[in-house]
Amino acid sequence: MPTMKAAVFVEPGRIELREKPIPDVGPLDALVRVTTTTICGTDVHILKGEYPVARGLTIGHEPVGVIERLGSAVQGYSEGQRVIAGAITPSGWSNACLCGACSQDGAGTLHGWKPMGGWRFGNTIDGCQAEYVLVPDAMANLAPVPDALTDEQVLMCPDIMSTGFSGAERAGIRIGDVVAVFAQGPIGLCATAGAKLSGASVVIGVDRLAGRLQIAGKLGADHVVDISRVDPVEEILRLTDGRGVDVAIEALGTQQTFEAALRVLRPGGTLSSLGVYSTDLKIPLGAFAAGLGDHKIITTLCPGGKERMRRLMSVIETGRVDLGAMVTHRFKLDDIGAAYDLFANQRDGVLKVAISP
Amino acid sequence: MPTMKAAVFVEPGRIELREKPIPDVGPLDALVRVTTTTICGTDVHILKGEYPVARGLTIGHEPVGVIERLGSAVQGYSEGQRVIAGAITPSGWSNACLCGACSQDGAGTLHGWKPMGGWRFGNTIDGCQAEYVLVPDAMANLAPVPDALTDEQVLMCPDIMSTGFSGAERAGIRIGDVVAVFAQGPIGLCATAGAKLSGASVVIGVDRLAGRLQIAGKLGADHVVDISRVDPVEEILRLTDGRGVDVAIEALGTQQTFEAALRVLRPGGTLSSLGVYSTDLKIPLGAFAAGLGDHKIITTLCPGGKERMRRLMSVIETGRVDLGAMVTHRFKLDDIGAAYDLFANQRDGVLKVAISP
Amino acid sequence: MPTMKAAVFVEPGRIELREKPIPDVGPLDALVRVTTTTICGTDVHILKGEYPVARGLTIGHEPVGVIERLGSAVQGYSEGQRVIAGAITPSGWSNACLCGACSQDGAGTLHGWKPMGGWRFGNTIDGCQAEYVLVPDAMANLAPVPDALTDEQVLMCPDIMSTGFSGAERAGIRIGDVVAVFAQGPIGLCATAGAKLSGASVVIGVDRLAGRLQIAGKLGADHVVDISRVDPVEEILRLTDGRGVDVAIEALGTQQTFEAALRVLRPGGTLSSLGVYSTDLKIPLGAFAAGLGDHKIITTLCPGGKERMRRLMSVIETGRVDLGAMVTHRFKLDDIGAAYDLFANQRDGVLKVAISP
Amino acid sequence: MPTMKAAVFVEPGRIELREKPIPDVGPLDALVRVTTTTICGTDVHILKGEYPVARGLTIGHEPVGVIERLGSAVQGYSEGQRVIAGAITPSGWSNACLCGACSQDGAGTLHGWKPMGGWRFGNTIDGCQAEYVLVPDAMANLAPVPDALTDEQVLMCPDIMSTGFSGAERAGIRIGDVVAVFAQGPIGLCATAGAKLSGASVVIGVDRLAGRLQIAGKLGADHVVDISRVDPVEEILRLTDGRGVDVAIEALGTQQTFEAALRVLRPGGTLSSLGVYSTDLKIPLGAFAAGLGDHKIITTLCPGGKERMRRLMSVIETGRVDLGAMVTHRFKLDDIGAAYDLFANQRDGVLKVAISP
Repeated sequence: MPTMKAAVFVEPGRIELREKPIPDVGPLDALVRVTTTTICGTDVHILKGEYPVARGLTIGHEPVGVIERLGSAVQGYSEGQRVIAGAITPSGWSNACLCGACSQDGAGTLHGWKPMGGWRFGNTIDGCQAEYVLVPDAMANLAPVPDALTDEQVLMCPDIMSTGFSGAERAGIRIGDVVAVFAQGPIGLCATAGAKLSGASVVIGVDRLAGRLQIAGKLGADHVVDISRVDPVEEILRLTDGRGVDVAIEALGTQQTFEAALRVLRPGGTLSSLGVYSTDLKIPLGAFAAGLGDHKIITTLCPGGKERMRRLMSVIETGRVDLGAMVTHRFKLDDIGAAYDLFANQRDGVLKVAISP
Repeated sequence: MPTMKAAVFVEPGRIELREKPIPDVGPLDALVRVTTTTICGTDVHILKGEYPVARGLTIGHEPVGVIERLGSAVQGYSEGQRVIAGAITPSGWSNACLCGACSQDGAGTLHGWKPMGGWRFGNTIDGCQAEYVLVPDAMANLAPVPDALTDEQVLMCPDIMSTGFSGAERAGIRIGDVVAVFAQGPIGLCATAGAKLSGASVVIGVDRLAGRLQIAGKLGADHVVDISRVDPVEEILRLTDGRGVDVAIEALGTQQTFEAALRVLRPGGTLSSLGVYSTDLKIPLGAFAAGLGDHKIITTLCPGGKERMRRLMSVIETGRVDLGAMVTHRFKLDDIGAAYDLFANQRDGVLKVAISP
Repeated sequence: MPTMKAAVFVEPGRIELREKPIPDVGPLDALVRVTTTTICGTDVHILKGEYPVARGLTIGHEPVGVIERLGSAVQGYSEGQRVIAGAITPSGWSNACLCGACSQDGAGTLHGWKPMGGWRFGNTIDGCQAEYVLVPDAMANLAPVPDALTDEQVLMCPDIMSTGFSGAERAGIRIGDVVAVFAQGPIGLCATAGAKLSGASVVIGVDRLAGRLQIAGKLGADHVVDISRVDPVEEILRLTDGRGVDVAIEALGTQQTFEAALRVLRPGGTLSSLGVYSTDLKIPLGAFAAGLGDHKIITTLCPGGKERMRRLMSVIETGRVDLGAMVTHRFKLDDIGAAYDLFANQRDGVLKVAISP
Repeated sequence: MPTMKAAVFVEPGRIELREKPIPDVGPLDALVRVTTTTICGTDVHILKGEYPVARGLTIGHEPVGVIERLGSAVQGYSEGQRVIAGAITPSGWSNACLCGACSQDGAGTLHGWKPMGGWRFGNTIDGCQAEYVLVPDAMANLAPVPDALTDEQVLMCPDIMSTGFSGAERAGIRIGDVVAVFAQGPIGLCATAGAKLSGASVVIGVDRLAGRLQIAGKLGADHVVDISRVDPVEEILRLTDGRGVDVAIEALGTQQTFEAALRVLRPGGTLSSLGVYSTDLKIPLGAFAAGLGDHKIITTLCPGGKERMRRLMSVIETGRVDLGAMVTHRFKLDDIGAAYDLFANQRDGVLKVAISP
């Protein structure tokens, strides 16, 4: 039985490279030879034991690669084709998908949807920090990569770009809106780029790291707010002449950023939440106008599927955004331990790492 | 100077009938002789000092009456015409209004909007529990009452019906949705009716009072859940085979109902909040799927304006809903003290009272 | 090789019962034993040679039946289960589906969508006027029928109800809208029911047949307009005090109804078109306000897929609509020639026929 | 009685400068001293007698100026303030406005809306090609100009930019869409800029004039199609690999462009029409997929009101678009005859002229 290397969750605190069998290909699957992948903040939560997954699971949900073998029922692709798949892999055929809630797909469950049901790679099935990854429901998920784009250019599409942009999209940003984005990590930076791309006339980027605020400026922020120096709520109200923002995007997952996002919102505005929270949240009565402010709070899980990937790659191909600056470090798969160490500790100005098996 | 009787907020605990001057009519105003009005739960908050208004203010925001005098710049109406005005009186000309956030109108403020800025009657200007009420921005707010409808038939339009229906409308209910409505007071009952009217295939009404649950059944609830007997979250999950609801409407304004509404929501579902809260709210991490459930939380303040009133009256006129059962008691304005006493203490199965000056 | 009876398009003017092999079941398919089906107006177009299909094709796209055999990759169903499938059978996995355009699925084509690409039964693959039908992409299309519902109760779901309701849904009908529905054949009647179910306060049904206008009244029309007696444009403007309608639904597919629908529309209103046209259409300059009326013209092809079917059946199960009156005649499959003869010639007040193999 | 110079429609073929009384200021009005204005293609239609207006009417609907005098009921402004008003001047208080159809305002009419009812300047009331213009419903329409912006920088906001952008907005463009814009006159160029600003990943500009195609490239077109050299339908299908466009914007008002826009649309796509047509339109059966292509055709009249103006100016202020290249010629009001001559005959590469009283 042929084997491959894979980064495996051993126990809290340990993700290690192991030899595993190359998986069998079911009728709806595709086996993809991974050429580039990356590490996500969620993987660090898994590493730390903060998000539970099965021991022995291969981690990673952002694959770029080449089709190695196609399932017997898969049509429309050929072996050797370069492809990506989204972090979320909707089946296409579940009730959730057919109802427009693809990320909440509960393929195989009784009622057809469950929270985060569409997130399978490195969560409920083996992921892509490995030499090979098995893509389920391949026809709904494999998106061919245009020849003009390199692996690194599309590496952000499966998760970071899809998630960040969705923060702008789901908020229904309109031309002329004022938008604040709380936290300028990889997802926040993509939300900043997505807000500008959606027609916001003013984008305000918020963070505490000068390096990130500088990149925010390049990706679309008209103003940056350094929370190590000023109170972000006061500063944003000042920047907007007391009017507040039409849309606030939360891209970190803490009470502090969630609450600040709510406090800068104009009456009738929308809080678009992308963060993964780890505690109960508090909604302060005043910030919520006692429930009478015509506010919306919208949460979004990274949209996936091949059409989503196709669209995001087209945005990169025509130069609408350049996320090249996001990949700050490169590692071989054999050195993934060092990559986790760097990324988990946020050393050396790291934003995203590229991993090549 | 001619005077009139008006129910005035004297101090916490005291709303009393006083003589006040009949107000002067500004160029954009209309003076309306009130023929029927009612008391709202919010008025009881004012009475108890829980919601602060100026001492001496006339209370009440649900007027039915007859035009007595028109401002010099008001066109398109005639004195003697029977009209209603919404509880919320948008100016029409503020930035908030022109941006689709009419209830958050900040007419007269620098930036054109503020939370609840559109709620003026009995909040920032004299209300309608009086013989006469001055309607601001009359051209945007006076809605002629069709001859076929009685005062009592349209008495719910200004607030209760507009608010309750908006809970269904803003949630974007689609044909075939399953909807739960938490609390079956006057607003919750209207939300129940509105959910059915919007195409929900299953409406579940939740309350602890048998009388209200019975009316819920008449107004559109397919199932009623008596929280004095069962746990509403468990019961709703049971009724939906574990699937949860597409839309949950909160119509009371408590942590308990807000949280239960969130807990019964399917992934991708919408919590439509109508309640006026009096404390900070807690969002439990699990019920919120850590922010990854594609949930929406939408709050709404009663939509106003003459076009809204016209539409709601048309719904009554063609018999789509019959809110007749909502008026359970009738009082003269002279007896408004007794009316407050009955309503504030929720005695005698009271839902809404009709007050006739 | 086992065979079955099937209604086959032989040549223009001839649809006949033939013996055909019972089809093989591919990995994504399900073989369904048909228990009830019906004839659609489109089938009559095929019969007359007005809509071209391959000779030898089995006709029919409205199946109710029992699962006989499941493809090797199909999970979540069991043989013997009673199911329906929509007239349109989206794959779930095409770009069109993943982009929200499921009816335009181009499964198997290069670019993933084409007009009417989702309509396969009795168009590009064998249909269901037969003893058995092969359902493609079964996991996306098979919807279990609740025990409480009979075959005839769900027989309208696959096409007529889904199409008619979509005319109301895609128009974005809001509570309080005035809606006119042009033509009260089976689809128009369902559009009338769907408009009422969506919250329209006034629904106006238009046709020339007294029997259909009578059923329109039962299904939700507040007013009926008999075009054999009055001019529908004049009459509808009279009924609306010159204001016009918010939404006009076209449910026949002729220049005359399309144009009348446009002429009764208020500025800013929506024309929702369901008809299958057979000629170029003319938009009169005046009716179109020279392109400056903020009008929308929206066309819709019957939405399919198992989640759509589930929702429509839930509407019937909770009694929101009763389409029982739509089935006016019943035939054995052996007598399908007589059924076509009756239906094609619209004799005997026929609305829909039920065919039982 | 003080007088002013004004460009007046005398008879078909003649717009001339005349002396007229400076108008009286009603309670809701504002008198604005015009500092810059321009000529619109619609004005040329009026000049040629193709669009009928009253003889003696002052023409022009794109005013930049300074408040000279405020009506007695107008609050929130001060004399001397620099302002613009939109070409369309909604009242704010009509049923149409309160229903979201502000451009179809029928202020003063019985039912509250009529086609183009919101277009008053130079149509039903005196316009702004004059030394002074009376702005009706001033509180809804006067938008203060930020100090940082010159007259010419905001001169496109009242009509061209508002109209062009609305073509992109009403089409619901999403990130990653492919958009074709038919005709690259001033409105088409703004539609091109608006499509890019809305997130389209590919924008295709179509015209026959090399100079306009060149500007299209600067304002956001990724591809330009010169219809003097190629067939636009064939070329756009070639550019999109046969897939067609998600959105086609028509910005000229002819059968040819309307039809081409329909022919390049993918199934499920949207045709957003901005042109003012002068003949009946034909919808070819095939291009319309017989009514079964899930197409939308949406027409839009220039959105107005002060909030719209505020938003558009904010887009210019933060540099999202630079429409500076649109003003190609400048004239004194005294020379408006020469300006009409140049503009009506499209000589000398004219796009828009600036007129200064």
